[in-house]
Amino acid sequence: MLIVQKFGGSSVADAERVFRVANRIVDTYRQGNEVVVVVSAQGDTTDDLIDKANEINPNASKREMDMLLSAGEQISIALLAMAIEKLGCPVVSLLGWQAGFLTNSTYSAARIKTVNSERIRAELDRKKIVIVAGFQGINKYDDITTLGRGGSDTSAVAIAASMRADLCQIYTDVEGVYTADPRKIPSAKKLEEITYDEMLELATLGAQVLNNRSVEMAKKYSIELEVLSSIVHAPGTKVKETVKMEKMLVKGVAKDLDIARVMIVGLPDEPGVAFKVFSRVAKAHVNVDLIIQSVGRDGTKDITFTVKKSDAQKTVDALQEYCDHLGAKKLYFETDVAKISVVGAGLETHEGFAARMFEALSDKNINIQTISTSEIKVSVLIDDADADVATAAVHDAFFGE
Amino acid sequence: MLIVQKFGGSSVADAERVFRVANRIVDTYRQGNEVVVVVSAQGDTTDDLIDKANEINPNASKREMDMLLSAGEQISIALLAMAIEKLGCPVVSLLGWQAGFLTNSTYSAARIKTVNSERIRAELDRKKIVIVAGFQGINKYDDITTLGRGGSDTSAVAIAASMRADLCQIYTDVEGVYTADPRKIPSAKKLEEITYDEMLELATLGAQVLNNRSVEMAKKYSIELEVLSSIVHAPGTKVKETVKMEKMLVKGVAKDLDIARVMIVGLPDEPGVAFKVFSRVAKAHVNVDLIIQSVGRDGTKDITFTVKKSDAQKTVDALQEYCDHLGAKKLYFETDVAKISVVGAGLETHEGFAARMFEALSDKNINIQTISTSEIKVSVLIDDADADVATAAVHDAFFGE
Repeated sequence: MLIVQKFGGSSVADAERVFRVANRIVDTYRQGNEVVVVVSAQGDTTDDLIDKANEINPNASKREMDMLLSAGEQISIALLAMAIEKLGCPVVSLLGWQAGFLTNSTYSAARIKTVNSERIRAELDRKKIVIVAGFQGINKYDDITTLGRGGSDTSAVAIAASMRADLCQIYTDVEGVYTADPRKIPSAKKLEEITYDEMLELATLGAQVLNNRSVEMAKKYSIELEVLSSIVHAPGTKVKETVKMEKMLVKGVAKDLDIARVMIVGLPDEPGVAFKVFSRVAKAHVNVDLIIQSVGRDGTKDITFTVKKSDAQKTVDALQEYCDHLGAKKLYFETDVAKISVVGAGLETHEGFAARMFEALSDKNINIQTISTSEIKVSVLIDDADADVATAAVHDAFFGE
Repeated sequence: MLIVQKFGGSSVADAERVFRVANRIVDTYRQGNEVVVVVSAQGDTTDDLIDKANEINPNASKREMDMLLSAGEQISIALLAMAIEKLGCPVVSLLGWQAGFLTNSTYSAARIKTVNSERIRAELDRKKIVIVAGFQGINKYDDITTLGRGGSDTSAVAIAASMRADLCQIYTDVEGVYTADPRKIPSAKKLEEITYDEMLELATLGAQVLNNRSVEMAKKYSIELEVLSSIVHAPGTKVKETVKMEKMLVKGVAKDLDIARVMIVGLPDEPGVAFKVFSRVAKAHVNVDLIIQSVGRDGTKDITFTVKKSDAQKTVDALQEYCDHLGAKKLYFETDVAKISVVGAGLETHEGFAARMFEALSDKNINIQTISTSEIKVSVLIDDADADVATAAVHDAFFGE
């Protein structure tokens, strides 16, 4: 089998952990598999480098930031390769550009255009374990780019897709995908399987197990993913197109605190207004999550939507002039909100799921500010002070004894 | 003017020093020059990375060591570029491979084959300051190589040669080339000028100001070098083909403690023996310095030569079998030796220089074990315990009041 394994930065934070990971890789290799490994920068390396940059120039260009940060993975691939050499296996480490990662030129948040895996293939044919630097590539100018946070997951899936790997294993510090955050909700259960779409919703909703772009890419190229622990030897959670029917319907309850609610009150009720609002937001490179448009007073309408907290001010700035021009009454944002979501394929064909969620919140006296539903999820916005209680209550309603 | 400036690792060890260097560069740029900067890894970065590697695998492959160590310069070029951005000048940082450094495949001690400076030229044409990672390149397999210790000097001169730069400035923590180590000999004088050949002898003899390969390359391509301080604003020492005649004849006194003396006693006195001995030494990748062959007893001959301390055991190992085969009486090395040298173009046309040196040593009761002379230097081997006294005495004989 051709297996791609991805290890995060905490898995290789020190020499002991590097060897733990190296042993995993060597085990897989000695079972007769071809192994390509994607690894992130060690532990706090990336944050340390960011601190160094901030000390010198907090407004450094993203091109130079990418030059700086990509050194982190360069260090970790070399050290991991050295550990595998010590264990007696043939190995070679490759930087993003050596491994054929071509991206667009959006420094710090680049998208992979292609992975030319010829070099990786040649090294595998020489019976080598191949260690690839995650998170990085080069653009058409031969400049180094990084894929942004969580980019190493995407690197791993991109290699798996390019090489038609049989399996892409994502090793993390949790044992798989849970019905809720197991550090917060002790009754949370590990899922054996989950579909790409469910995983996508969970990722969007703030469950930090897998980077969303990596799941999208896995879905597009039908790459079977497995999320599993880099410490505990146990099967993890498989992410695939379809899962067995007898499995539970609701896959998880997720909480997202990194959101802000932007509100525009008193927009003229004319065609094209929403389009123009959101094209301005898109131009500011802000991703919008939930959107609710409602009828206001006196022939006006109100628009509410959510963005990441760090994008809130930028969003309002991007809209101010246009809203003034239209004569909107108010444009503002609030950050004291949380989003609680229930995810599961087939939710829409089963009545009563949304109701059961609302009942659990009502029992705890938690006010629902906004509701949004899709085919496989129900999300509500609530006061962020209620987030933990709400998550526990909703989880208990679906997974309680 | 097109000026290449090289800054060592201690010059960019922290944010304050990075800005000091950045200001130097920006000054040069604002005077209307095109500026290409070569920089080493910050302060102790390289040693820290070596420690990390040793913790994991002290016998790591050199290929992976080069992958690891080259990350050090990647960090320093990005940080220096960020500082220059902060000072408001257009700048771009380039890794060895981006700057066109192609080397052979001797990992950890690679030789530069060519510098394809197209990218650097294009960035200069865009009015940018170009910051290049020293010490590194890639080989024909697209793998990263490093040039070995002091390689950043060579990187700088190679760029200057490839681009026909008007001047190559090597910034260091001393103010220029001195007649002796100014930390040890307070009366040491800074030289205004020195020839390539004199500089080569001084470098060979243990004066650590400039890497030898860089001086050889500068000589070959007639690149004018200037050695100057990265801290004090003052003219340094110019290294060039010819210097004014009225300048002092003796350029410096150098001391080298990193030598071992290898002795072979009782070799058969036949043609080809010396050739075979030294071809075996060369095969072991050991550089030989002084060689003295003398007549032994009973139709045999003895050979004495010096190598770096770290190469001594390897040298004896490489020769053991052959010496046994020839019936040599003894093969051994000693490390308690030091080499003291006087350097100056034209020494051979001035009688009495060697004698003045020997007199100074004799006055201090220091025994000379071996003497070796060339056109521009006189070297003696003495007991290493006498090295400091000998250096001071010889310096005083030539430069004393």
